[in-house]
Amino acid sequence: MKVRPGFREEVVAILLSGADGLREAGCELYVVGVAEDDDVTIWVSEVWRSREHHSASLELPETKAAIGRAMPMLTGEFTGQEVSVVGGLGVWSAGRAGGGRPEGRTR
Amino acid sequence: MKVRPGFREEVVAILLSGADGLREAGCELYVVGVAEDDDVTIWVSEVWRSREHHSASLELPETKAAIGRAMPMLTGEFTGQEVSVVGGLGVWSAGRAGGGRPEGRTR
Repeated sequence: MKVRPGFREEVVAILLSGADGLREAGCELYVVGVAEDDDVTIWVSEVWRSREHHSASLELPETKAAIGRAMPMLTGEFTGQEVSVVGGLGVWSAGRAGGGRPEGRTR
Repeated sequence: MKVRPGFREEVVAILLSGADGLREAGCELYVVGVAEDDDVTIWVSEVWRSREHHSASLELPETKAAIGRAMPMLTGEFTGQEVSVVGGLGVWSAGRAGGGRPEGRTR
């Protein structure tokens, strides 16, 4: 996502402020990164237990509040890519009993 | 990255085969995902302790061997995005003593 010039730190702080609460919403991984070649781009990579967990998280009051705080500082330019996580290092195993494939997002 | 039709599972297996050894090379996170809307796209998201750790890993004999095995099955289409990781959930903290910012890559 892209922020209006000068607002990246503030948006990053908002994105990180709710990170701890994401785990109980079904988020396995949430990585906030900033582009090195500009001052306005933020990348967020997420892995969720399922697509449904991610959708439900967007309805949480704290999520909606955070989006509302950040929105005026964003330009509206978003890109995104959804994938099915098949494995790796440092992330929830796709073989876990009882679940489908975890859902990854980069945006 | 994109694979030649029919080779995605094989390339994913190669990508995952070395995942366990990446940690000692300085890799904090390595997530392999597949696109849901086609059969030929693979996404890899990585977080490295530093850019130097990542560069050094590309010189390891096992990395070179894996790249050599996978290369004939790839189309050559790659995209990539490097970021500085600033925090999140389930990933190495950027505040760790003695280190710079960890380096994130999605490709």
